[in-house]
Amino acid sequence: MGLERSDSKELKGIGASAGIAIGEVRITDRRRVPVTEVVVAHEEIPGEVARFAKAIERAKGELCALKDQLSSTHGPEHLCVIDAHLMLLDDTMLVGETTQYIERLGINAEGALKRTLTRFKSFFDGVEDDYLRERGNDVETVVERVLRNMVGQKQESIAKIEGKAIVVAHDLSPADILQIDKEKVIGFITDLGGKTSHSCILARAFEIPAVVGLERATLEVGEGDTLIVDGATGVVIVNPGVEQFRDYLQKKQRYEYVERELLKLRDLPAVTLDGHRMRLKGNVEFIEEVAGIHRHGGEGIGLYRTEMLFLNRSTLPGEEEQFEAYAALVKNMAPQPVTIRTLDIGGDKCLTDLELTDEMNPALGVRAIRFSLRQPEAFKAQLRAILRASAFGEVRLFFPMVSGVAEVRAAKALLEEAKSELRGRHPFDEKIQVGIMIEIPSAVVIADLLAAEVDFFSVGTNDLIQYTLAIDRTNEHLSSLYEPLHPAVLRSLKMVVDAAHGAGIDACICGEMAGEPEYLPVLLGLGFDELSMNAVSIPRVKKILRRCSMEEARQVASRALSFSTAAEADAYLKGEIAARFSESFD
Amino acid sequence: MGLERSDSKELKGIGASAGIAIGEVRITDRRRVPVTEVVVAHEEIPGEVARFAKAIERAKGELCALKDQLSSTHGPEHLCVIDAHLMLLDDTMLVGETTQYIERLGINAEGALKRTLTRFKSFFDGVEDDYLRERGNDVETVVERVLRNMVGQKQESIAKIEGKAIVVAHDLSPADILQIDKEKVIGFITDLGGKTSHSCILARAFEIPAVVGLERATLEVGEGDTLIVDGATGVVIVNPGVEQFRDYLQKKQRYEYVERELLKLRDLPAVTLDGHRMRLKGNVEFIEEVAGIHRHGGEGIGLYRTEMLFLNRSTLPGEEEQFEAYAALVKNMAPQPVTIRTLDIGGDKCLTDLELTDEMNPALGVRAIRFSLRQPEAFKAQLRAILRASAFGEVRLFFPMVSGVAEVRAAKALLEEAKSELRGRHPFDEKIQVGIMIEIPSAVVIADLLAAEVDFFSVGTNDLIQYTLAIDRTNEHLSSLYEPLHPAVLRSLKMVVDAAHGAGIDACICGEMAGEPEYLPVLLGLGFDELSMNAVSIPRVKKILRRCSMEEARQVASRALSFSTAAEADAYLKGEIAARFSESFD
Repeated sequence: MGLERSDSKELKGIGASAGIAIGEVRITDRRRVPVTEVVVAHEEIPGEVARFAKAIERAKGELCALKDQLSSTHGPEHLCVIDAHLMLLDDTMLVGETTQYIERLGINAEGALKRTLTRFKSFFDGVEDDYLRERGNDVETVVERVLRNMVGQKQESIAKIEGKAIVVAHDLSPADILQIDKEKVIGFITDLGGKTSHSCILARAFEIPAVVGLERATLEVGEGDTLIVDGATGVVIVNPGVEQFRDYLQKKQRYEYVERELLKLRDLPAVTLDGHRMRLKGNVEFIEEVAGIHRHGGEGIGLYRTEMLFLNRSTLPGEEEQFEAYAALVKNMAPQPVTIRTLDIGGDKCLTDLELTDEMNPALGVRAIRFSLRQPEAFKAQLRAILRASAFGEVRLFFPMVSGVAEVRAAKALLEEAKSELRGRHPFDEKIQVGIMIEIPSAVVIADLLAAEVDFFSVGTNDLIQYTLAIDRTNEHLSSLYEPLHPAVLRSLKMVVDAAHGAGIDACICGEMAGEPEYLPVLLGLGFDELSMNAVSIPRVKKILRRCSMEEARQVASRALSFSTAAEADAYLKGEIAARFSESFD
Repeated sequence: MGLERSDSKELKGIGASAGIAIGEVRITDRRRVPVTEVVVAHEEIPGEVARFAKAIERAKGELCALKDQLSSTHGPEHLCVIDAHLMLLDDTMLVGETTQYIERLGINAEGALKRTLTRFKSFFDGVEDDYLRERGNDVETVVERVLRNMVGQKQESIAKIEGKAIVVAHDLSPADILQIDKEKVIGFITDLGGKTSHSCILARAFEIPAVVGLERATLEVGEGDTLIVDGATGVVIVNPGVEQFRDYLQKKQRYEYVERELLKLRDLPAVTLDGHRMRLKGNVEFIEEVAGIHRHGGEGIGLYRTEMLFLNRSTLPGEEEQFEAYAALVKNMAPQPVTIRTLDIGGDKCLTDLELTDEMNPALGVRAIRFSLRQPEAFKAQLRAILRASAFGEVRLFFPMVSGVAEVRAAKALLEEAKSELRGRHPFDEKIQVGIMIEIPSAVVIADLLAAEVDFFSVGTNDLIQYTLAIDRTNEHLSSLYEPLHPAVLRSLKMVVDAAHGAGIDACICGEMAGEPEYLPVLLGLGFDELSMNAVSIPRVKKILRRCSMEEARQVASRALSFSTAAEADAYLKGEIAARFSESFD
């Protein structure tokens, strides 16, 4: 330990994008703009109001310039983030209330804006929903931009960083990530952010190691410090000692070795020892992620989430805009198939105006197909856009949150309408395959009735576990009860496969269980035909698949189904099965 | 229509307690205290603060006097409401923030208190949870009391009303209802309130016709007006015309005739035409409701909700206090059995200090058995209290929100500890029957595993439907999707009965489906052994039961199970079955 530096320290954040980066710190955003509220003389009030208004206009100018710069290289779903920030700068509460604070309380503009931010934050505090928390972060980012303009502090563009460096920032927007040159920025850490934020999704797509949510990183780390960033564990080491440095260099080399080895599996077939094929596909939200699916040997896209096109905007995207996005994705992935899921959010989430949902239990609310069926014209626009994209490659479409036969029939009737609206005007695949997500317990119980209505099932294990066990998976107090191996979950999975195969249709999984190599033997043994997961999981799952026989997998599944509690099944899988494949889990 | 009075009008509220009342209006709470915010001179500010403090003290004095007056006649669960109001009068936000508003904004005390109320209400606005909405109403009621004291307005006690009258009030607290003399107050209507409020539960227990949530009743109705109150439909007619008067008089007579006829069923056995027995019991929350169960011929209590003992207080009730409440109930019901459910709420709901839950989806959160298992000492205190009550009559106990075998085993282990802590110190039933609520989909899927662990199942259909269909039943936008006859629900019910009978244990229902006469043939045909419901439903359900044969019921259940959608099953039951028993549904 004598080799440790005296200024060495360790920070713990949220591992947001796996990989290890070792390099020198480059701080792009020294710290939050410090704000002090001061009472101003009565005659200074109009000046403060004007200063605030000017800062708002400057912030708008900056965002418009950034939008112009990025619009040539990036799709509309990314530019929407900038639009959302622009809209906030016109927000009645943000602008109007701040002005009122200046005028009523007679305080400086910075203090008034800070008060408004506090009010906004009180809305979002304690909210566990990722989407809403992201909206809270948007407000904070915009307020920081206005404050910087008020105090005349310049923000440096991340694109201008020279040399190899690890960026340390209070926050990085998706626009920042899109500007990153991977040759220069080898990793980043931020004070703010959550694992499911748009910025982190992009970091994973670009495979840039990142740790977020460190809270005080910009205060704890100095320009020129040496940093180790472990994007898998969330550990950040500032000025490591020699031993730590050596350890992490080894870890980094090992990680890169494993990655290279796994990538060698890319072109090998996803097949068991005894010749049983299973399709391994990728889940994506952005077209930028398609390259990763190709790189990791995905056999197509098993779940394309269309939500990002709808978020952060005040009007629904039209048929043309959606068509362009879907067609680009299909072309990028062709000849491999793309499975497009229709909108899986509620109406409240389509708006940037920060109206909070008034649903007490949004997870049990008007979401997904329930929302789409209430907006038939908007839903048909999405269906037409998907149908038109099917002219450019193999496309399947499926509906989320189906609870019964009536919803499927209603959705399919609208699909037929969409088809007849297109006939003679646009080419499309008349025989497009139509599926449903199985994620609501009722869909499991009547899987046989649903199987008669569709061409395939795709199980959303995350939501299915949540609803089956009545556990909110975003509630940290219940994480111990969120049990993928609960006998009710395993039996439900079996009911779904059996119903699908009984009707001669495919059973797929696109939830997180699909991407966990430990679960592969069970899911294979239950009979699933296709698993769809994050790109980086594909070779890991394939590796286990290729070492497994179907016979063995059936025994594992049957044994896993025999336990009364999740703890027993877990012990079995973690013990016996993990040992069997020990050298395969890295 | 020429017979209508020109000042006749109809109001529509929430039917809170069935029955028709026709009588003269007596307004106890003319209207909300009108509040105008005015800026006061700087030197008047201390006076406003003092005036506010004095009003708070007076309000406390009134509540303490009321508590003394009621404590001789009513149980602790009712007095807790008054305690909750007393605690609010010490609340930092209510008192501290109002004082700050006076001082910082230089406004009058009424205006400042109104601002605080607005802030409080913004917390509760849009909240669909009945419990939290009730807390919002508590705040409003307390603020009104303080305002009345500030402006020197006296509130008349409902106990002092003379003659037969229908009370019209802005709001009535449970304490008000407890003071009602049924000979004098024949019905009531209020601006505020929801169907599941404590006040309405008491109104139903006392069979006082009531309509709540009318919003502007105190403004629309005048002292001495003639009023018709239809507590079933929520219709209130002010100054009815002659025809309306005659119509409702007939309806009232018919209602009272039907009630009398139904009560004649009280002592007849709950048995089908072909001699199959089914136990019909009552659901209760308060000891006051036991008389209604006896009056309507209930064969015991199938669900005693213990939550009311835990609500509206800052500390958990101890073993003694619970024992007294449970023992009183058991003695009142003996020799008929009482089924006591352990606590079915989360920790946040045990407190009056208005801490809002920070769970995003409370219906999927730390509730019921999940909460109890995290508080083993408090849970054992409840179990000991229930065990001790079992010395006074037949007691069964059951656990809510069970999702798997591990929870049942953990709860039973604590029950064994509770038993050994009591042995030699208090008598109790060593062989007390232990059951579980079946209300989470996982419990249905593994009902066979759970049946091996317990003595009976009781299906909570409300929550089971909610979780199975992933529908928040408090979300008005989804009411059309809340389908008790959804094939997944009917299949789930069948799975539960089959698993129970396979293990030789009883299958009961204590959700709302049990009290709907239309569903009786299906539930009977599925094989349920016991239904527990609101007291007034018992004779209605018994009437259908006694006209049904088991053979016929089995055919109905089998037919209902054959449909693919709830709409088809509904049409079948509403058509064929309703016609078959048409004369039985009144």
